[in-house]
Amino acid sequence: MAGPAKIGLVDRTLRNLKGAWNDIAQAMTGARIVASDPSLPPEDLARVLEQMRACLEGRGGEVSARARAADLGRTYLALNGKGRRRFLAILAKDFDVDRAAVAAAIRALERAEGEPMRRQAERALRTALDAPRIKLLRQFTALPDGVKFLVDLRAELLEAGDDDPAVAALEADLKALLGAWFDVGFLELRRIAWDSPAALLEKLIAYEAVHEIESWGDLKNRLDSDRRCFAYFHPRMPAEPLIFVEVALSHGLADSIQRLLDSSAPVQDPRQANTAIFYSISNAQKGLVGISFGGFLIKRVVEELATEFQNLKDFATLSPMPGFRRWLERELKAARAPLLPPEIKTLAALPGGAAQEDGLAALLATAGWEAKPALARALKGPLMRLGARYLASERREDGRALDPVAHFHLSNGASIEQLDWLADRSEKGLSQSYGMMVNYRYRQAEIEANHEAYSGEGKVVAATQVKALLRP
Amino acid sequence: MAGPAKIGLVDRTLRNLKGAWNDIAQAMTGARIVASDPSLPPEDLARVLEQMRACLEGRGGEVSARARAADLGRTYLALNGKGRRRFLAILAKDFDVDRAAVAAAIRALERAEGEPMRRQAERALRTALDAPRIKLLRQFTALPDGVKFLVDLRAELLEAGDDDPAVAALEADLKALLGAWFDVGFLELRRIAWDSPAALLEKLIAYEAVHEIESWGDLKNRLDSDRRCFAYFHPRMPAEPLIFVEVALSHGLADSIQRLLDSSAPVQDPRQANTAIFYSISNAQKGLVGISFGGFLIKRVVEELATEFQNLKDFATLSPMPGFRRWLERELKAARAPLLPPEIKTLAALPGGAAQEDGLAALLATAGWEAKPALARALKGPLMRLGARYLASERREDGRALDPVAHFHLSNGASIEQLDWLADRSEKGLSQSYGMMVNYRYRQAEIEANHEAYSGEGKVVAATQVKALLRP
Amino acid sequence: MAGPAKIGLVDRTLRNLKGAWNDIAQAMTGARIVASDPSLPPEDLARVLEQMRACLEGRGGEVSARARAADLGRTYLALNGKGRRRFLAILAKDFDVDRAAVAAAIRALERAEGEPMRRQAERALRTALDAPRIKLLRQFTALPDGVKFLVDLRAELLEAGDDDPAVAALEADLKALLGAWFDVGFLELRRIAWDSPAALLEKLIAYEAVHEIESWGDLKNRLDSDRRCFAYFHPRMPAEPLIFVEVALSHGLADSIQRLLDSSAPVQDPRQANTAIFYSISNAQKGLVGISFGGFLIKRVVEELATEFQNLKDFATLSPMPGFRRWLERELKAARAPLLPPEIKTLAALPGGAAQEDGLAALLATAGWEAKPALARALKGPLMRLGARYLASERREDGRALDPVAHFHLSNGASIEQLDWLADRSEKGLSQSYGMMVNYRYRQAEIEANHEAYSGEGKVVAATQVKALLRP
Amino acid sequence: MAGPAKIGLVDRTLRNLKGAWNDIAQAMTGARIVASDPSLPPEDLARVLEQMRACLEGRGGEVSARARAADLGRTYLALNGKGRRRFLAILAKDFDVDRAAVAAAIRALERAEGEPMRRQAERALRTALDAPRIKLLRQFTALPDGVKFLVDLRAELLEAGDDDPAVAALEADLKALLGAWFDVGFLELRRIAWDSPAALLEKLIAYEAVHEIESWGDLKNRLDSDRRCFAYFHPRMPAEPLIFVEVALSHGLADSIQRLLDSSAPVQDPRQANTAIFYSISNAQKGLVGISFGGFLIKRVVEELATEFQNLKDFATLSPMPGFRRWLERELKAARAPLLPPEIKTLAALPGGAAQEDGLAALLATAGWEAKPALARALKGPLMRLGARYLASERREDGRALDPVAHFHLSNGASIEQLDWLADRSEKGLSQSYGMMVNYRYRQAEIEANHEAYSGEGKVVAATQVKALLRP
Repeated sequence: MAGPAKIGLVDRTLRNLKGAWNDIAQAMTGARIVASDPSLPPEDLARVLEQMRACLEGRGGEVSARARAADLGRTYLALNGKGRRRFLAILAKDFDVDRAAVAAAIRALERAEGEPMRRQAERALRTALDAPRIKLLRQFTALPDGVKFLVDLRAELLEAGDDDPAVAALEADLKALLGAWFDVGFLELRRIAWDSPAALLEKLIAYEAVHEIESWGDLKNRLDSDRRCFAYFHPRMPAEPLIFVEVALSHGLADSIQRLLDSSAPVQDPRQANTAIFYSISNAQKGLVGISFGGFLIKRVVEELATEFQNLKDFATLSPMPGFRRWLERELKAARAPLLPPEIKTLAALPGGAAQEDGLAALLATAGWEAKPALARALKGPLMRLGARYLASERREDGRALDPVAHFHLSNGASIEQLDWLADRSEKGLSQSYGMMVNYRYRQAEIEANHEAYSGEGKVVAATQVKALLRP
Repeated sequence: MAGPAKIGLVDRTLRNLKGAWNDIAQAMTGARIVASDPSLPPEDLARVLEQMRACLEGRGGEVSARARAADLGRTYLALNGKGRRRFLAILAKDFDVDRAAVAAAIRALERAEGEPMRRQAERALRTALDAPRIKLLRQFTALPDGVKFLVDLRAELLEAGDDDPAVAALEADLKALLGAWFDVGFLELRRIAWDSPAALLEKLIAYEAVHEIESWGDLKNRLDSDRRCFAYFHPRMPAEPLIFVEVALSHGLADSIQRLLDSSAPVQDPRQANTAIFYSISNAQKGLVGISFGGFLIKRVVEELATEFQNLKDFATLSPMPGFRRWLERELKAARAPLLPPEIKTLAALPGGAAQEDGLAALLATAGWEAKPALARALKGPLMRLGARYLASERREDGRALDPVAHFHLSNGASIEQLDWLADRSEKGLSQSYGMMVNYRYRQAEIEANHEAYSGEGKVVAATQVKALLRP
Repeated sequence: MAGPAKIGLVDRTLRNLKGAWNDIAQAMTGARIVASDPSLPPEDLARVLEQMRACLEGRGGEVSARARAADLGRTYLALNGKGRRRFLAILAKDFDVDRAAVAAAIRALERAEGEPMRRQAERALRTALDAPRIKLLRQFTALPDGVKFLVDLRAELLEAGDDDPAVAALEADLKALLGAWFDVGFLELRRIAWDSPAALLEKLIAYEAVHEIESWGDLKNRLDSDRRCFAYFHPRMPAEPLIFVEVALSHGLADSIQRLLDSSAPVQDPRQANTAIFYSISNAQKGLVGISFGGFLIKRVVEELATEFQNLKDFATLSPMPGFRRWLERELKAARAPLLPPEIKTLAALPGGAAQEDGLAALLATAGWEAKPALARALKGPLMRLGARYLASERREDGRALDPVAHFHLSNGASIEQLDWLADRSEKGLSQSYGMMVNYRYRQAEIEANHEAYSGEGKVVAATQVKALLRP
Repeated sequence: MAGPAKIGLVDRTLRNLKGAWNDIAQAMTGARIVASDPSLPPEDLARVLEQMRACLEGRGGEVSARARAADLGRTYLALNGKGRRRFLAILAKDFDVDRAAVAAAIRALERAEGEPMRRQAERALRTALDAPRIKLLRQFTALPDGVKFLVDLRAELLEAGDDDPAVAALEADLKALLGAWFDVGFLELRRIAWDSPAALLEKLIAYEAVHEIESWGDLKNRLDSDRRCFAYFHPRMPAEPLIFVEVALSHGLADSIQRLLDSSAPVQDPRQANTAIFYSISNAQKGLVGISFGGFLIKRVVEELATEFQNLKDFATLSPMPGFRRWLERELKAARAPLLPPEIKTLAALPGGAAQEDGLAALLATAGWEAKPALARALKGPLMRLGARYLASERREDGRALDPVAHFHLSNGASIEQLDWLADRSEKGLSQSYGMMVNYRYRQAEIEANHEAYSGEGKVVAATQVKALLRP
């Protein structure tokens, strides 16, 4: 974790503040700051340690202890990178699991006789296995933006990537805590529209991870009357989307992201639409990595849309294939010849002066191939077949689909509906997947079976046309 | 847990529904009910067990599993008392901690070498100590009022008072879960006023536990411009107060609850008030017993009031002494003579024909003594001294103040400010404490010290006038 | 207008205030009170007059003038009945239409040449016809509850019933002003339910004018899941319903108000209901008498209900016949014999010992006739025929239906669907209409034609069964 | 009124709609469109005329009439410029004041005897002077955005600038109607901030009339923590600001608009600010021209700010002088020599090669003079003196200050506090006033007196330093 504070809310306040450390700290907090220097030198560290102890012991009563925890949190926010690393290190190490206590609890459990004693001993062991630092983490919720604080804290821990096992365990504690609090049952689904707060929309622009939002005009277009955007929120982070999905209401499947995002295209009457296209799903909080609600989001949004628009029949995605090109290049390097597609051989002369024998790799290396009709036409067949194979057959060692987006949708119970040739002509699209995209389809009645087929037997369900591409 | 469903929301729907079980169930849920009979006979039980397993295994994907959990929850709601006991029994026993797994995890921990392995083994042991039923409880949050469902489920478990250790452990699991979710950092403080929803105010009437609210008129008076009422809410139970406090804004300490609640008394200008009297604090959710936020509530309300009213100087309670009479009667029975107060002896003739030698017990047995001025006058001195002794000196074996209300305020950092003679002339007041009440006082600057004094050394801080009552 | 202030908001503040006039005034207003005595003696009157002038001249600028108007308004609120009469008298008379100015404007109009000059002269004449007091009335909107203030002011003027033509003209000015502001296009329709603010529900209890709401329990029953209540609100009087309607969702027409209001009756599933019964419509603001929105309310509520409940087919009322008994008694007195219904003659012996020749009047005078089955049976036929005649054929001199409720619904385009025998057995019901009630029906497709038939030709549309009652 | 529809809401819907007129109309309205062609040919006109009549006669009942008026309104929205002009012309002429009726009413008034008759005749005359079209205009409020419709209708009438007296009178009727509805007592002051809806903020960007908002970033900066923005809203146009003011919280007077709007400047702690600078006030609705609430807005915002920030001492503007350059150029042309300022003569050599004798006009014609320090220095004195004279002494024929912004603030009771040299270096600033700006100051205690001085005697109150500039 290098550099200055990452915490958004504070950053804004800090943005232009100049002056002494103490002023900064006070300006941010209006409260007691335990440390005197943002890098937390030894004497400050001792004070911080003492205050952590006081919090955990509940000195002066629970209410006071929690107020003290809030002061600690504010102190943390005012630290620089070095200070924060020191702060987290003592939190992780000085309040780690007490192994002697664990050993004692195990012995007590082994000695326990009778059901009630055994239960009690089990409970005691379970308690001993919880590091004391967890209690302190909980107390940080007393901060005004306490939950966001903890989410960002985990983001910093992950970014710092500290090798220390105690620090890693602190991160794991935090993940467990956040996992309990961000249970999907506690989240609120909210629609985001052009009359949502600008302060919220600004975050969509920042967090969009699939197809960059280029301007407020682009955003407005994505929130027009034939579009929908939904996000999950936590009641204690009401201004922060956790994950959001962008949907286009259309006639039939969308097969080009550029056409779909074209703000000069006519607005459709959404009541006539028969298909909802989920074209972008972005996780917004780095600190919630590994705590998943994407599948729930899709299902809830399908329900919302089906209620609002009676004519909707199909729910599908227009998804990237982020690992396709990387995979294909690796394959081509490893075993070039067999991949040379037969169509290529029939081409009399290849644009760009490439010889037939150069095969696919050379053709794909041709600058601007996608804009050369003959070449693009020639490449379409082979690439589509390779794309289908990549999505449907290529696996990681643990059995998951190699493509992470494919894994997400397949494990959610979707099927592969269609591959879309040159559906994303942006630089990113070409560099990720030669511009190829894919539609995954969600059919209510098949979701459970699809999920079981994929999770259990590793079987991927695909539409006839995709299967055709898979045939040798 | 006898009788039909206690869950409020469902009760309302059920209220007048007549007809077959299946209709009822459907009317309530609009969804699949796993059982066919509200008493859950064996074949239904088997089906329920199967569905519980499906949920825990995540069969058909997480989203489906959770939908299935919701169906289970709805099934539970539609069961009768017998059916519910059976449901909870299999949940407790068939999804209990797996002791073989715990033993294996302990062995693995003992064999683990190197820091990372050890950490992993600790984590695995901790996981093994969590009963699988916990995961199912979490999934119930997918119900529309899922959190309230779990709170009420615990209330039913507590009420049933099942001796089975597995059921008791289920209740403990639930308590731990609710304790994490109802962390005070997640709660919202809201003011309740006469323009709050009637559906909410109705709950105040139902939940008020200290001084019964007799009518909507009485309630309106308690929400008048010189009164305040605040409650904590959980974001997932927005229509249910968790705990609420009623406050009167006055000049000086209040020393009579009847005067304070008299709706014909003139309304004061609250901006002139110098004292806030907390005269009633009620826990509203039986299912949250043992998860405390009372101390936080008082502190937050003090802050709110201090911000709204600049002239407020003192914050105090007007509190009952619920165990005083029971204690005194026990004392009198055990050792009658020494308690005979000297003032009594100076009375020439006692009303009601009681002889001096009958002592305090006889005098207090005189019907309507509180309305006989001479007798009441005679009793005041001795009872006040006994009341002070009861509050300040009498302890439980564990060192807590014998009086539960005294313990609550003293451990929150309050001091005993004043005893109030015949401050509650209601039947309840007389039967609990001979009508005596007490003011506890909260002074911001002394709260931490008072708490430490009481928690650490068992010392009670009292005002001079109370100390005078304590002198022999 | 006798007695103390009627204005609700102030009353509440004043309720218990004791003390000198000035304190009261200040407590209410926090501002300059122009008068020194609540009865507005001459010297105060002069000050008030001076301030009215200052307001109208905009002395010190518009903002200051308006602040001064607000002070005047507060002064008025603090006056007693006598003071208020004086205040209104000078407002009416000293700021009346200037007749010399009108005459001059008429002359100018008559002399005006050319279109532009004429237009200008017309505008000037129109301005001259507006009394200056209107401008002051407008300025009262600057009071915190300024619009409610003016509504209540008109209520007081109407109640006082002052004969003075200037005061009557002031009331007419106010009516015109309120008529413009309370245009139905500006009103908000809001549903009122059990989770509406208690402060609002309390007003329903106070304002219900048709079937008294007896308790909060009665009210809750009227807001249950198979009931609906809607009201119009003005954006500047958000806490005050203007008019509200209570609706029951049922199977078929309701023919008994007691059954309909029985809180022990089972709650119906509203989604199954095919009929919406409008059983109570109450105007809530006396100061808005003569400004009608009842017809709009019914139409909007029909739309709301039709959207929420797809199965609703019929929209009808269950209405009182407030003038039926009064009319019949007059008729009986005037021409007794011909009204003796033939059925009566067939009765061998009449309960209560009445002789046949006593006729209807005597029978109806029998105490408790409605509880004597034979007698009630005998009376049903004749009374139903008379009721139908009363509703459908009896007219005021101006051609309106004699019954005011009938006029309201018929002019809104409803038809008479059914007469309900002993549908209101309450004392009020019996004394108004021998317990008879009527269902008016609203059929979307017929509303315009019905209205035209009634308004134009005075024709009443009635169902076959009602027509049968009308046949000789 | 040339060109296509200007009404915002419809434009948005129409934006991309292609196809036949009828489809467009239906898409917009979901309702009966009276016309068949957007240019309203004769046969359509006849139908429209007939429907207008039906509305005014209340044919089919008030509710139906109003629904019909709404259809008319939707028809209007779907017309093109030509059709709209035709629509408005028949509305203006066919429903104009009935002069025969006015003449008859005048005669009746002259004949009226006795007070009640006279009053009635006056009322009748007043009614006769109201054109029937007014009733129809009122009925348009039944449209979903009815009030906005009427505001935009007036904007179109003003823009069209039709010479026809009837059309002008229609516009005057509309102005009177809007004036009554947009009484400041009915408006809501709302703060606008970065968490306001983007759909609202977008309107600020569009409506800002003083210092153009260049981007969303610029806007965000204007809504930062040391800035405030407030607007008036009408309850029936909740998404449309009527007028808004932008305020900077600072230390001392701001004397440069570029510095004030610099988004790279440090954010100030607003709690430390002692001065509130009103740097931009924009009217947002062309259709409300002539209905003023600017003075009220400033006063209300001063109150809001004074409540939020205890340290604020001064409230002032940083205002443009829009007519200064135009005035000076006229003056220079008319009488060049006397305006030659003495300072100029002392300059040895003028940059740009201008000769001394060329005087001010020539100097100001020097391209980029403001960036040439010596020249700018030389010009400062004379221009500042001329600016002071322009603001404080130059008048229109009717006695108002020549500068419209000066008139606005002076008539609101402000004084001239300071002239700011090169305070607006933008192209607009230089072309309006050679970059000069002015601070008007609002002092609560002096507002009434200042207003009276200016309105009554035409006296302008100015600070000592401004008076110094005015001395010969």
